Amino acid sequence: MRLRLKPRDTRFFELFAVAGTNIVSAVTVLREFVSAPAQAREELARRMHEAEHAGDEATHAIVEQLDRSFITPFDREDIYRLAVRLDDVIDFMDAAVDLAALYNVDALPEGVGAQVDLLDRMAKLTAEAMPRLATLRELTEYWITINELENEADTVYRRLLSYLFGGELDPLTVMKLKEIIDQLESAADAFEHVADVVHSIAVKES
Amino acid sequence: MRLRLKPRDTRFFELFAVAGTNIVSAVTVLREFVSAPAQAREELARRMHEAEHAGDEATHAIVEQLDRSFITPFDREDIYRLAVRLDDVIDFMDAAVDLAALYNVDALPEGVGAQVDLLDRMAKLTAEAMPRLATLRELTEYWITINELENEADTVYRRLLSYLFGGELDPLTVMKLKEIIDQLESAADAFEHVADVVHSIAVKES
Amino acid sequence: MRLRLKPRDTRFFELFAVAGTNIVSAVTVLREFVSAPAQAREELARRMHEAEHAGDEATHAIVEQLDRSFITPFDREDIYRLAVRLDDVIDFMDAAVDLAALYNVDALPEGVGAQVDLLDRMAKLTAEAMPRLATLRELTEYWITINELENEADTVYRRLLSYLFGGELDPLTVMKLKEIIDQLESAADAFEHVADVVHSIAVKES
Repeated sequence: MRLRLKPRDTRFFELFAVAGTNIVSAVTVLREFVSAPAQAREELARRMHEAEHAGDEATHAIVEQLDRSFITPFDREDIYRLAVRLDDVIDFMDAAVDLAALYNVDALPEGVGAQVDLLDRMAKLTAEAMPRLATLRELTEYWITINELENEADTVYRRLLSYLFGGELDPLTVMKLKEIIDQLESAADAFEHVADVVHSIAVKES
Repeated sequence: MRLRLKPRDTRFFELFAVAGTNIVSAVTVLREFVSAPAQAREELARRMHEAEHAGDEATHAIVEQLDRSFITPFDREDIYRLAVRLDDVIDFMDAAVDLAALYNVDALPEGVGAQVDLLDRMAKLTAEAMPRLATLRELTEYWITINELENEADTVYRRLLSYLFGGELDPLTVMKLKEIIDQLESAADAFEHVADVVHSIAVKES
Repeated sequence: MRLRLKPRDTRFFELFAVAGTNIVSAVTVLREFVSAPAQAREELARRMHEAEHAGDEATHAIVEQLDRSFITPFDREDIYRLAVRLDDVIDFMDAAVDLAALYNVDALPEGVGAQVDLLDRMAKLTAEAMPRLATLRELTEYWITINELENEADTVYRRLLSYLFGGELDPLTVMKLKEIIDQLESAADAFEHVADVVHSIAVKES
């Protein structure tokens, strides 16, 4: 059993909770973005960059807290990995929005809405799981459900690829859309990587 | 010199041998797939998924064995890395088959056969090398030959890229084929990464 | 404070200085390449491969020195990471040149010149910073400037993407050029990763 100094411990959990909440905000912006009219996009891309920046700051705060702490609630490396993986999620969503704005994509295919729905559910589950890191209890369902949702995201992604390459669209549009859809698929993968880290922490510490 | 408890040691070598044999089976399916008529592909893709699943199980078995073992034949990290790298090989082959099925690609360019021939030779060399981990002897030729074959695979890959972008094919076909060929090239790289891990183990332990 | 055995220490700094100088040579070749007439390209690609090979050798020399040294000027892992990151820079530049030669690309878009200008400045700053690893002083400006230049490189890269997908070019040309430009963008990112490692060493050791 390892010593726990409560004041230090809770600080990490607060910071992870902030990172989780921030991801939920980012998905909210993403959801608006994918159905927004062209003229609203710039403002939404700006808000997504803000969320991405807040994510960077949450990660830095965790890493700084790590530098300052002699005793940590779990392995330093796991704390670091969790912070980085949470940051990845927003980076991919930010990249998707960024490319859609940059490429001046008219309308996104319908399946993108399904991708975003799944990201939304994954974000909420992840944010809800973060405070439970303090006790490492009741995390099994979180972890299993994220894996199921990631499988669903794979199916949606593959259906989108079939559509993209089905011959309806011109090649340049296919290239542009594929890059955006790839980023959203990477965001779904990134949620699974977060859950993997949480799972490995729970297994080690229990 | 490190202590060796024989019963535990041999278990790791058995598991690595299983992983090696499984890769040979996967290449056999891949070889059939690339020259199969369209109607046979679904069944072959299903068999490739089975090989991929068996690969996952071999990796898990190694990681679990690692968790249970106090004494390991070589560094825990190296055992872990080797298991993961072996798994990568099949993941890339599975992805290639998956994309070819998903994109409904008519015929693969001739050069793909050359890619698969090289993967076949790399798979056999790798499977033969696994039991030699027990003594860490006679691994030099394995390691050198894999590196040579990977260089040949690079040449084949580059020739395929020249063909793809040569102007004969329509852009959507180029995109589809490039993704499949990239996965096979990654499989060849992955064999080299396996050999790199084996090499670094041999250097450390000798 | 950690013990420093001067003779061993200086060897690492010399090797990092070699790696830095080598990157400057590689950028010089890259700069010639992007504005060279078609018939001069083969010779320049050959010179780039030489620089890439010299980079590999510098990395190996550092790793071997690491294997031989009991006492190192900073954490072994940081030395290793720095060597690998420096090597990455040249690998990306080499890949860009390689693809441009392979794809027989006529002329590169104007923006590529701006990418290379930024890489040139990053290379010089990096090479100048390497000898300062010995004292870990006066590295702040290096690190900040690299980050600024990487942001500029991002802007140039995004402008290039807008141009590529603007509809002027045929899809195959877009695909080819995008791969080349992506490699140069990765080289700029790689310079930033080098600076990140230097920064983290400076923070740890100060």
